[in-house]
This record gives sequence, C-alpha cells and structure tokens, in this order.
Amino acid sequence: MLPENPLRKAREKYLPILPSVLQQIDNVEWVKDKNTSLENEEIRALFPLTFGQPILKLQKNRNNKNRLLRVGVVFSGGQAAGGHNVITGLLDALILLTPESRLFGFLEGPEGIIKGKYKELTKELVQSYRNQGGFDLIGSGRTKIETLEHLAFALHTVEFMELDGLVIVGGDDSNTNAAILSEYFISKNSQTVVIGVPKTIDGDLKNTYVATSFGFDTACKTFSEAIGNITRDCLSAKKYYHFIKLMGRSASHIALECGLSTHPNMVLIAEEIAESKKTLQQITHQIADLVCERAEIGKNFGVILIPEGLIEFIPEIGVLIQELNHLLADFSIDNKEIVGRLTEDSQKSFISLPERIQQQLLLNRDPHGNVQVSFIETEKLLIETVTQELKRRLKDGKYRGAFSALHHFLGYEGRAGFPSNFDCNYCYSLGYAAALLITHNATGYMCCITGLTQNPIDWQVLGIPLTSLMNLEWRKGKKKPVIKKALVDLCSKSFAFYKQHRNAWRLNDHYLYPGPIQFFGEKQLTDTTSYSLSIDV
Amino acid sequence: MLPENPLRKAREKYLPILPSVLQQIDNVEWVKDKNTSLENEEIRALFPLTFGQPILKLQKNRNNKNRLLRVGVVFSGGQAAGGHNVITGLLDALILLTPESRLFGFLEGPEGIIKGKYKELTKELVQSYRNQGGFDLIGSGRTKIETLEHLAFALHTVEFMELDGLVIVGGDDSNTNAAILSEYFISKNSQTVVIGVPKTIDGDLKNTYVATSFGFDTACKTFSEAIGNITRDCLSAKKYYHFIKLMGRSASHIALECGLSTHPNMVLIAEEIAESKKTLQQITHQIADLVCERAEIGKNFGVILIPEGLIEFIPEIGVLIQELNHLLADFSIDNKEIVGRLTEDSQKSFISLPERIQQQLLLNRDPHGNVQVSFIETEKLLIETVTQELKRRLKDGKYRGAFSALHHFLGYEGRAGFPSNFDCNYCYSLGYAAALLITHNATGYMCCITGLTQNPIDWQVLGIPLTSLMNLEWRKGKKKPVIKKALVDLCSKSFAFYKQHRNAWRLNDHYLYPGPIQFFGEKQLTDTTSYSLSIDV
Repeated sequence: MLPENPLRKAREKYLPILPSVLQQIDNVEWVKDKNTSLENEEIRALFPLTFGQPILKLQKNRNNKNRLLRVGVVFSGGQAAGGHNVITGLLDALILLTPESRLFGFLEGPEGIIKGKYKELTKELVQSYRNQGGFDLIGSGRTKIETLEHLAFALHTVEFMELDGLVIVGGDDSNTNAAILSEYFISKNSQTVVIGVPKTIDGDLKNTYVATSFGFDTACKTFSEAIGNITRDCLSAKKYYHFIKLMGRSASHIALECGLSTHPNMVLIAEEIAESKKTLQQITHQIADLVCERAEIGKNFGVILIPEGLIEFIPEIGVLIQELNHLLADFSIDNKEIVGRLTEDSQKSFISLPERIQQQLLLNRDPHGNVQVSFIETEKLLIETVTQELKRRLKDGKYRGAFSALHHFLGYEGRAGFPSNFDCNYCYSLGYAAALLITHNATGYMCCITGLTQNPIDWQVLGIPLTSLMNLEWRKGKKKPVIKKALVDLCSKSFAFYKQHRNAWRLNDHYLYPGPIQFFGEKQLTDTTSYSLSIDV
Repeated sequence: MLPENPLRKAREKYLPILPSVLQQIDNVEWVKDKNTSLENEEIRALFPLTFGQPILKLQKNRNNKNRLLRVGVVFSGGQAAGGHNVITGLLDALILLTPESRLFGFLEGPEGIIKGKYKELTKELVQSYRNQGGFDLIGSGRTKIETLEHLAFALHTVEFMELDGLVIVGGDDSNTNAAILSEYFISKNSQTVVIGVPKTIDGDLKNTYVATSFGFDTACKTFSEAIGNITRDCLSAKKYYHFIKLMGRSASHIALECGLSTHPNMVLIAEEIAESKKTLQQITHQIADLVCERAEIGKNFGVILIPEGLIEFIPEIGVLIQELNHLLADFSIDNKEIVGRLTEDSQKSFISLPERIQQQLLLNRDPHGNVQVSFIETEKLLIETVTQELKRRLKDGKYRGAFSALHHFLGYEGRAGFPSNFDCNYCYSLGYAAALLITHNATGYMCCITGLTQNPIDWQVLGIPLTSLMNLEWRKGKKKPVIKKALVDLCSKSFAFYKQHRNAWRLNDHYLYPGPIQFFGEKQLTDTTSYSLSIDV
C-alpha cells in the first residue's frame, strides 16, 4: 500500500525563507517611514483615535527588550492558500521574542470572537499545518463585527482573555473591520492592539504598498495548471471552444494573471468592458468574430477566459442587477411581480436573457436579498448568445464552421491547496510582522511586505495604518468607511502587456502549459511569483 | 518578466526509466510465454489468420540483426497523458535498432490513415514533446476504420508508404480496430504489422496482463489534486456539500482511485449500484442519510464523488436511456412524441426527472442518435433529488440541518496535462515494446508492460494477441467482436479496501490532500503509481 499524504509530510518540513530584517527578530525596531495623508476629513472624523498615524518600516537595531504577549488570531472570509503560515509565523515569532508568549485561535471566523470560542495554538498543535493549505486549523466565517452589540462582545472577549493583540486575517471588508475594532478598543481604553493581514485570492486588496494579497499566487497557479491542461486538450482534439469562468468576485485580476500565464485566445477583462461600455450584444459579437476568424483559417476550437465579476460590469446587466437588488431586498414582493416593476430598459435586458439566467437572477439571493453574482452562469450565458449569433451568421453566409462549446468554472480548487513557496514565505513573514507590530503597540495597522518580486531575503517589512487606506462609499443608502477594492488598472504595465500580445494569441495558439505547482527543484520552477506582479514592478 | 514555460523545458530533459530488458535493445528476443485459449470459436471464425497466437515475452539475448523499418503511428480517441512518450519511445527504439529507420505520424486520428495524411517524425521534431501532455504533435480523432471501403483506403496508405508497422494508440474500440486491420492486412498479403497500445484515462482497458492503460495515473492524480483542495476548502468553510462528477465513461475506476487517494465522505461506485439494483430514489436516500447523520454531529458539509457513468447504471434510468436511444435513432420522430412512445415504466422514470435533465436526455445526441451520457448533469440531478428528500425529512422532523450544495465536473483538465513520471516511464517503454514487436513481425499484438507497481527497472515486457482479449457483443442488433470494457471488479482488493474504510470516512473527515503532481524530489512523491494498482497487486 502506498503512503498516505506524502506531500503533506514533505511540505511540513519546508522552512520558509525570511527577509533578512526578520532573521534576527530580537534586533529590530520600527521607524517612521513616511507620514500618511491627513486630508481625508470624513475618515478622520470616524477614526479620531487612529487616523493620521505614519507608515512604519522595520529595520535592524540593537537588542530590544521583549515582554510576554497573549495574542488572538482569526480567519475572516473565504480561504486563501497560506493562512496556516500566517499562524505559524506569528507563533514562531512570538515564542522567539518571549518563550512564554501564547497564541489563541478564534474558531470559525469573527463569530468566534463574539462568542468567545477559541483554542490555544501551541507549537505541537500547529506543527502539521506548516506550509499546508486550507483554514481548517481554526476554520473561518463571514460574520462581520459591526453592530455596537458585536463590538461590545468582542471587547469583552479580548479583555477576558487579556489579549495584547488581535490579528485579523482577511480581505478588504475584514481589514475595514479591523480598523473599526481598533478604534473602538482604544475608545474603551482596551490595551488590545488590532492588526490586519491582507488575504484574498481575488487580488483586489492592493495598493501602493500591498502589491498582492496572499493566496492570489497559489490560486492563479492552480487555475493556470487547469487552463493549460485544457488548452493542450483543446489543441489536440481541435473540436471545442472552452469557456472557462474564473472565481474572483468583481475584479479581473485572476483572469488577467491566468491569461498572462497561459495565453488563451481571448481573456475578457471586466474593467475594460465597463470602461468601453460594451453591451452583452457587443461582447457576444466580439467572441463570435473570434470564432469566425479562426474558422476561416480552419480552426474550430479555442479557449476563452471569463472573470466571475464580468456580468456586473456589463452596463445594462449591472443596472438590471442593481434594480433587482433594490426590489429583492423587499421580501414582500413576489418574484412574479418583480419584472413588471423594473424600468423599461431593464425589462428589455431581463427578457433578452435565457430563461435559466433569468431564474438565477431571481432565485439566488444572499442573506441581504442581493442577487448572488457568483451563482450566475455567465459562461453558459455567453455560449448561448454566441451560438445564436453564429447561427445568424451561418444563415447569412458570413460564417462557415462548426461551433461546439464546453463550459468550466474554476474556483474552489484554487483556494485551499498547498500554498506555493511564494505564499508560504509571504505568509510566514506576514505572521512575523504581525507579532512585531503588536510588540510596538501599533494598533490599527496592516502588515505589509514590499519588494515581493525580489528574493525573499531582500523583502522589506512595513506597517500601514488601516485608516490611510480608507474611503467613504455609499452602501445601502449610507456612507460607510471602506477599503476600496482595487480593480484591474487599465493603465498598468501588466494590462498593457496583455493588450500588446492579445492579437497574436487570437489566431496563433501561442498557448503556455504552466503545469502543476512544483515545490522541489530549480528555483525558477518553485519560487517565482505571478506574471502580473513581475511586469508591474 | 518571468520565463515562459519553465516546466515544459525542465520536463523535456527528463530521461524516462527503462526496464532492464529494454536497456540493451540490440540484445533481446521475444519468446513464447504462454499459449492463449483456443476455445472461442466465434472469434476464431472472424480472425482465422491472427487467432490463437501465443503470448510473447521479451528477454535478454545475444546480439540480433536488425533491419531498416518504416513505421506509422496514430492516436485514436480522447487524450491521455503520455501519448507523446509512446512516440518518443518508438522513435528512439527504431533509431537505436537501425539509425536509418523512419517514423511517420498520421494526422488527426485514423482519418489520417484513410486520407493518407501524415508527417514524418524526426528526432528534432519530437524533442520538445518529450514528457509533455496532450496529443498535439499529430492530433487525434474518433473516426473508426470499419467499413470495407475504409479498410481498403488504409491498406492503400500503408502500401503506398511502404510501412513495416502501424502502431495504433487507443482504447478498447481502437484496439479492436487494430485487430481487424491486422487480419485484413494479412488477408491482402500486406507486410504491415499492426500493433495496439493501451491508452485511456478511464482505466477500463484492463485484463490479466494489462494492469492499467496509460493516462489513468495522471488523470486520477490531477483530479485528486482538485478533490483534495476542495475537501480542504470544505473542511475549512464547513458550509457546503460538494458533489464532484468525474469523467470516465462507463466504469467507475477513476472514482474508486480518487476515493482511495482523497477519502471523501462518499464515493458512488456505479458497478455496485447496478449489482444491488439501486433505484434513483434509493441512491437519493443513501445520500440524504449521510447528510442527516452528519448533521446530527453538527457537520453540514461533505464531499461526494460521482462517476460520470453512474446514470446508465441506475436500473430504471439505464432502461429509459436504452429506449430513448432506440427512439432517437429514428430521426423522423419528433421530440414531443417520444415520451408518449416510451413504455409505461420509462414514462414514469422520465417524468420523475427534473426538467433540465429531461431536456438533456432529449437534446444531446451523438452522431448515431444516442443519448450523450457525458452531457447529463448527474451531479445536479442528485443535488436536486437530495434537496427535495431533505425538505421532506425536515418537514417530518427527521432532519435538522442546513443543506447547501455545489457541483463540479472534473474531466478535461486531467487528459492532457504533463504526464506523471509513472506515465512517462510506462509510455516510453510501450513505445520501445511496439518497435520490438514490429521487428518480430508480431502483427495483431498489444504491447504490454507488467509488474507496474515495482521499480520500472524490474518491469517485464510482453506482447498479447489482440484476438485473445476479444468477445462477441451485441451492438445495434449485430454481434460484433469487441474487447470487453473492464468494469470495477466488486471482488477486487481495491474495492474491498474501499468498502472496509468507507464507514470511517462517512463521518470522520479522514480527508487526504494529495496536492499537485510533483516531478522533482523524493521518489515517493514523484514515482508512485495509483492506490488501486498498488492494492490489487
């Protein structure tokens, strides 16, 4: 019988590479790097106690004195590969600083903080989670600590547990929440420092300092393995168009990165479609044009990448979804009445959609009554509209070819796999940085590692005040402080690179096959990060 | 900018391990290993010229004299990882035997033989395909050489090209075809030797000698990577049931192997369901029972594997599909009339199915008018029937829990990826064996490597007469010679192993995370074969 879990065991032994500044954790200090902008008066008003702090930079120094720390950590939201390494980095750093320090993991997300459910994370317990995927050591959840009641419960928990620090590992919303908690704790004279860690496979938690959130690298590499395999299958069989939808909520970062690493025949970038205000019909024509051009050179096959968020970025569908959200929020309205209550334009848009998509728009609601965009099968919608368009062209003699399409959705297989070496190193360093920000009492800060395209030994470690990342946005009729989701920047070098090459990829099948993530062997196979990051540097 | 295709280039350099008997290819001979059964008179009647040949075994010997060979090779049917290594093994062996030998690849499957479309495969041309996935060097296709006209065209091609050998790389049908071609060529005094190579990810081309077909190992490992990632995601999020359908036509070999390597909460084995004559309702109850039992211990999540072929093995659906095939083959019948023409039982079965599945049964036909089983979304069907059943139980107070299900289909990502070291070695040896069978004029033989769970150096090389694998089966009202598809053997050790452990896997979440295929590092990470193979030895 073969051994069980050999890779799990082999990965447990991997030693993440630390930036040189973290290698002697006793001999460091945080210094002011830069002031942050003080201009956002609305944010200052909401966060009077934590607004305006400077960016901190870690540098080497003489020996410093450390104290025993009690720290809590929580995962918030969807999985991203590397989460367990944030915990092991945090624990290893805390123990190196003061061997008696203790770490506690809140169970099943922020709900664990509210309800005071946690377990102690010891060296023995975390050992088998080193460099492993998933969040299963402590679980995760989507509860938000927002109401005054929840804030009070959270305060009660951290006081009761006598925590010096609370590390919140999450995306934009969770880091916004970390800022709110931090402000609240100070206002209640709590000593608990709150630190955010940038996590999300979507890659939309991104700014001047945070080049990428953790998990993006592993997710894109896992999706690209599958995409590469499918393109090679496609090129061998020469009979199908593969429409591949990629997880990633609103932003198209994942689609762009997977495009750069696999060179499919077309990548739809939602941000570009929104900017050029393309309708569903125009997108359909764009794909049909590709199919026709390829048919003319004898190719009745191809691969098209579709970002999950696309549907919302198509102007008329975006408006329709907004109207539906507004109407669906009122649960007293019957589904049958809803269509009649849409504006005339949206009624037209709705009726033009295939029946199945209409159902998906009406039936799948999140707990707030919103349309669940991730459940809309955009890949099937486009196959259907393109099929109709090609039938018309066939009839008009403008197309001669065979169109047979298959659909795929890549998502859950990319969130909880073994983290790439990049994500292992990155997360382990983030855990160290969190520990050091707590020793510095730097509450309301996000851990940040810069220079990520360089050798990890040369990475820099920063702390960014969470409030400096915030803006006010309208949410459900109220202005709320949020960390803005970073969409694909159409002026970025990575998007320019894609634009420059996409015409060649349309017809020439310049497919790349990245293959499965490798953990052993030459550095260029195991330790590189993403294409978009390396281009955008 | 990062390098393009680093893994492709690294894999090109991999040197497949050869069995010791193949390491000095000049010093070997084929000897009779065993006689095959002479009892099947019907097969003898159909193959008078090739029936009754013995099994051949390759052994070391003194130097033998070789001659210049001209050989053709073709891929038939769906992709399986390792196909390119059959070609490189074949070419390397031919050139080692006689440097002037030449290899030609028929383009886009057996159609290339009929139409005489081919290209020469030189060392330079094949270099970048060494240890690579896909069939794109020469393509593949599903045309069958069956009619007298096609046979005559094929004969014309091999005669015109002066081929000494024709190597057909394919599954059960394609190897049946190789036997027919072989018999036909002899009957026409052609000197062209026909050799079959066992290929199919489905694992159903399997017998006393052929422990597995090539591609099965890589496909199962690729699917298991995704399944492991999904189970870890599932265990972290604790809120979904994942219904994962796995490609693999009729037999459930892939589902069993992936089950053994990931330990999900349930694996449906179609052969077991057929044997115990379970109805769709009983299968639904079986899954609902799992959900209820897990809900009682607070677990509202889980992973269930579903073989693609399941739907046909459910007795009443199997009958329904047969009736539909019969009716659909008659294209003059309108879809609307078909239901009325079904037997009463099948009408009931049909009406009990969700509307979408009804449509899939009626609309998706293959070129012969048959229902396309692979397009039936069994995973969604089961989610729907289980949801209904759980609603009933909830109402009756027999279930308290939350059931939210996600569906996946794993297929195309597993056929054309980088072949595992096992498949690289196996295919390269198969290519060598094919070359040596041609030198021996052993027409109508299938290449066979035995001892596959041992170190490749200890593998044995056999030649199996194709006719010895054949039986007569009814196909479209006619008795036809076919190589029987090997279904999962319910008496096998691997199935027994699964049965022994499945109760523990139901509730305990003893999930394994195999992770991505590794090519570099410790042998136990890179060179093992499948669990079912290692158990069944």
